Amino acid sequence: MGVIVQKFGGTSVGDAEKILNVANRVIAAVENGNQVVVVVSAMGKTTDSLVNLANSVSGKPDPREMDVLLTTGEQITISLLSMALQQKGYGAVSLTGWQAGIQTERVFGNARITDIDPEKIQSYLNEGKIAVVAGFQGITECGQISTLGRGGSDTTAVALAASLNAEKCEIHTDVDGVYTTDPRFIESARKLSSISYDEMLEMANLGAGVLHPRAVEFAKNYNVTLEVRSSFSLDTGTLVEEEVSMEKNLIVRGLAFESNVTKLTVSGLPNELTTLSTLFTTLASNGVNVDIIIQSTNQQNTTDISFSVETSSLDKTLAVLNENQSVLQFENLYHESGLAKVSIIGSGMISNPGVAAQMFQVMAENGVTVKMVSTSEIKVSTVVEEENMIKAIEALHQAFELDQRVPVHGA
Amino acid sequence: MGVIVQKFGGTSVGDAEKILNVANRVIAAVENGNQVVVVVSAMGKTTDSLVNLANSVSGKPDPREMDVLLTTGEQITISLLSMALQQKGYGAVSLTGWQAGIQTERVFGNARITDIDPEKIQSYLNEGKIAVVAGFQGITECGQISTLGRGGSDTTAVALAASLNAEKCEIHTDVDGVYTTDPRFIESARKLSSISYDEMLEMANLGAGVLHPRAVEFAKNYNVTLEVRSSFSLDTGTLVEEEVSMEKNLIVRGLAFESNVTKLTVSGLPNELTTLSTLFTTLASNGVNVDIIIQSTNQQNTTDISFSVETSSLDKTLAVLNENQSVLQFENLYHESGLAKVSIIGSGMISNPGVAAQMFQVMAENGVTVKMVSTSEIKVSTVVEEENMIKAIEALHQAFELDQRVPVHGA
Repeated sequence: MGVIVQKFGGTSVGDAEKILNVANRVIAAVENGNQVVVVVSAMGKTTDSLVNLANSVSGKPDPREMDVLLTTGEQITISLLSMALQQKGYGAVSLTGWQAGIQTERVFGNARITDIDPEKIQSYLNEGKIAVVAGFQGITECGQISTLGRGGSDTTAVALAASLNAEKCEIHTDVDGVYTTDPRFIESARKLSSISYDEMLEMANLGAGVLHPRAVEFAKNYNVTLEVRSSFSLDTGTLVEEEVSMEKNLIVRGLAFESNVTKLTVSGLPNELTTLSTLFTTLASNGVNVDIIIQSTNQQNTTDISFSVETSSLDKTLAVLNENQSVLQFENLYHESGLAKVSIIGSGMISNPGVAAQMFQVMAENGVTVKMVSTSEIKVSTVVEEENMIKAIEALHQAFELDQRVPVHGA
Repeated sequence: MGVIVQKFGGTSVGDAEKILNVANRVIAAVENGNQVVVVVSAMGKTTDSLVNLANSVSGKPDPREMDVLLTTGEQITISLLSMALQQKGYGAVSLTGWQAGIQTERVFGNARITDIDPEKIQSYLNEGKIAVVAGFQGITECGQISTLGRGGSDTTAVALAASLNAEKCEIHTDVDGVYTTDPRFIESARKLSSISYDEMLEMANLGAGVLHPRAVEFAKNYNVTLEVRSSFSLDTGTLVEEEVSMEKNLIVRGLAFESNVTKLTVSGLPNELTTLSTLFTTLASNGVNVDIIIQSTNQQNTTDISFSVETSSLDKTLAVLNENQSVLQFENLYHESGLAKVSIIGSGMISNPGVAAQMFQVMAENGVTVKMVSTSEIKVSTVVEEENMIKAIEALHQAFELDQRVPVHGA
C-alpha cells in the first residue's frame, strides 16, 4: 500500500463546503488503496485577517509572535478537515507542525525545514487513519513555533512525501496543471502531461505561479514526484519529475511572459573589479529588485550595464541611482518602459544547439525587435516591446509545436 | 521580586484596543517590581465562531479535533498581547499550553491539569520577560492538545500561580470584586475586601459567577491567594484567601439569590432504601438538574420528597416523573412555580449558632413565607415566593450588617 501526500491550498479550503469537497477528494485516494497524508493551508483570507490584527496592536510585530499568530490558521483547517472526514465515516487525525515532527531552523517567518521525524504520522497511517497535517509550520530545536514563509505549505507537502517515501505528492490548486504558456492569453496553450524539475523551476520563476520554486527544488533534491492538479476536477494534472520520457521530448516545453518591464542602461561606468557589485548592492540595499542583467564591456576604461526592473519600481530605481551617482561614477542613465519579457523554457535546449537562434528568427519574421537577451542552459529570455508580447508568444508557441496534441502521460 | 499571575478573560481582550489596555495593566504590575505571568482567554466571541465552523462540517465533531480547533483562540490572544507589550517597550514572550508545560489527563474537552513544569516560564521570567500564557489548554502525556473545559482559564492561572509560588493570582474580569450580594438589584450591596475560599465557592455556585468554582477549589487546595478585580479600573478588588482576618469578621459575608425556581413534591413514595436513589437517578439520566432536595419521613410506610428545579425544566420534569410513575411508585405529584431561592453565606456561621434562626426571624418580620430550607455549614438556603425575593434580600442585607462600611484590606 503506497503513501500519497495531497496538498490543498487556501482557496481549496476557503469555507465549510469546500472543506467537505476536499474531504471527498481525500476519500477517493483512500478508496484507491492509498495511505493518505493531507497537507492544508489556512482558510481563504484567514492569514490576511490575522496580519491585520497584528498590525492593529503593533507597528512592527515581532516575528516570533507573528508565527505563533499565523500558525493558528492552518490549525483551524486541520481540525475542520479531520472532523469532515470523520463525519463521512473515515478515521482521521490532525497534526500541527510540531506534532508532525517538522523541525526547522531557529528562524521566524521564513524558516527552512531541517529534519522530519515521520514516526508519528507513520503510526497513524499504520492504524488505517488519514493524517491531516498543518502546512507552512514547524518547530525549532528549542520548542518555538516557526513558519516556512511563502510557498511553505507546498514545501511541507514535498518534505513529508520525501520523509515518508511517498509514491507521489499531489499539489491541488485552482488550475488543473502546468500549461505550455498562460491559457488566459494564448488560446492554443496546452496542458503538459509532464515537465522536469528544472523546467518547472524556470516556469515558476517566470510567473506561471502554480507551484512554489522552493517546493520544486526540494522535490528535485529528494526525487519526489509531484503532480499539479485541480482541487475542483478529477482530471489528471501535470507530473513534475526527473525523467520526462513519456511524451514526445519537446525541445521547448513552455513559454513564459510578463509585461510592465522597464530597461535601464547605466553607461560610462569605470571598468573596475567592483563596478558590478557596487551597482547592484546599492540597488538591492535600497529595495530595488532587478531581473535580467547584461554587461558588455566595449571600451577600455568604461563599461555599460543594462538591467530590467518592474515598471512600478522605475521611480525608486532612478532616485537611488541619481542619489548615488558620485559613488557609482556613471556618466549617463537611460531608461525605456513599455516593455515585456518573453521566454522559452525546455531542458531539450541543452542538447539542441540553435534553439536561441530559432527563437530570434521567429521574432524577426514577426517584426518583433529584441531589446535584451539573457540565456541559461534551459531558458532564453528576451525583452521586447509590450505591444508585441502576445504576438511573439503566439508565433513561438506554433513554431516550437507546443500547440500540437501529443500522447498524454497515463492516457 | 515576587511573581504575580494575572488572568484576563475574553471580554477583557475582545479587540485590539482592549488588548492594548490589558498591556497597560500588565506593565503597571511590572513597574511595581513584580515578575508577571499573564493568562488570557480567547478574544470575545472567537470560541463561538469556531464552534459554528465545526458544526458546519460535522454533526458531531470529535472532541480531540474540537480541542485542536478551540485552542487556536487563546493562541491568537497570546501572540497579540505579546506584540502589544513589545510595542510598548517591554520584553514579552507567548507560550501555548504545551509550551508552558501544562500537562493534563488524556481527556478532551474537559481535562484536569495533572502537572505543571514551570521551568520554561521561570527561565523567561529570570530573563526579565513577561510570560504570556494561553489559558484553558494543555497537553496530554502522549502529546495531544487538550482543553480544560468551563472555567479553564481561571484554573490555568491558579495552577500556574501554585507551581510558581506566586504571591497572588489576580483574576481580572468585568466586575470589580465580590459583593455582599448582587449590586444590580440591591443598592446597598458592598464590595467585600476579602472572602474565604469556602464562602467564595458557595457564592460562585449560587450564581455570583465571577470566578469558576473549579479554580477556587484549586486555589484552596494549593493555598493560592486570589484577587478578583476589574480589568477596566485600578481599584483594589476582593481577596480570596484562607484567613479572612483583615476586616471585621462578618458572620454572614454574602447573600445570593435567583428567581425562576419551581418546587416539586412527590408524595406517597415507598419508604425503602432505594427510593431516593431511584428517583434522582431517573431524573438525572433524563437530563433534569435538581437543586435543593429535602426529605422528611413522616409516615411509617411512605415518604414525601421535595426538590427544586429551574422553572424552565418543569415540563420535562413532570413528563419524566409521570412516565416513570409505575417504577417510582409515588401517589401524588405537586408543583409550585413563581418561587425564588434566597441564601446567606458565611464561614462565621459555624461558630455562631442561631444564624439560621435569625434569618428566619428576619423573613417572618418582613412577611416572607419560607417554603423550603436547606443548610450546610456555611450556608442557609431558603425558597420563597418570587415577589418577596428582593424584599427578603434587602432585609437580610441590613440585618446582617452587610451594608455597613468596614475597613477595606490594604486601604
